[in-house]
Amino acid sequence: LKGLAGTNIASRKKSRMAVVVKAEAAGVGINPDIRKTEEKVVDSVVVSELSKPLTPYCRCWRSGTFPLCDGSHVKHNKATGDNVGPLLVKK
Amino acid sequence: LKGLAGTNIASRKKSRMAVVVKAEAAGVGINPDIRKTEEKVVDSVVVSELSKPLTPYCRCWRSGTFPLCDGSHVKHNKATGDNVGPLLVKK
Ligand code: FES
Ligand code: FES
Repeated sequence: LKGLAGTNIASRKKSRMAVVVKAEAAGVGINPDIRKTEEKVVDSVVVSELSKPLTPYCRCWRSGTFPLCDGSHVKHNKATGDNVGPLLVKK
Repeated sequence: LKGLAGTNIASRKKSRMAVVVKAEAAGVGINPDIRKTEEKVVDSVVVSELSKPLTPYCRCWRSGTFPLCDGSHVKHNKATGDNVGPLLVKK
């Protein structure tokens, strides 16, 4: 019984590892919500049309004002331990 | 024994679900490799310094020429089913 229990624990650990390894190998998308009906989300900034001298653009895919940055990267970084931030476009 | 086996399977399924749910709840970072020693990766484009009329900037965190886009979003989208793409800066 002790041997059996040991096998079950090992098997459970293996199965957990398989899930983690599979997730890393297959890769996980980075955009959960933005314009998911589009095959590829590409945006353009025409710099001559910018009103302010500095405009931050989102690279975390969590902004409520995408493609602009609204500061949501702060919450994302805190929740995940990530280190992403915006692209600042300066005219 | 049948009951015991049933319990083990249920327990293993629960443990797998816990891993998946935990991963979703905690969130997963979107930047695996770029400048991980920096607390927050922020870049600036000074548009008057751009040489070409159109410059694509990476938002997938997979580019070998980050902060520029090198087309790596194509491989990322194919591998994960994601739909991310660059920001095109036009002067
Ligand atoms: S909200 Fe996404 S980078 Fe700031
Ligand atoms: S390589 Fe990252 S968006 Fe193109």
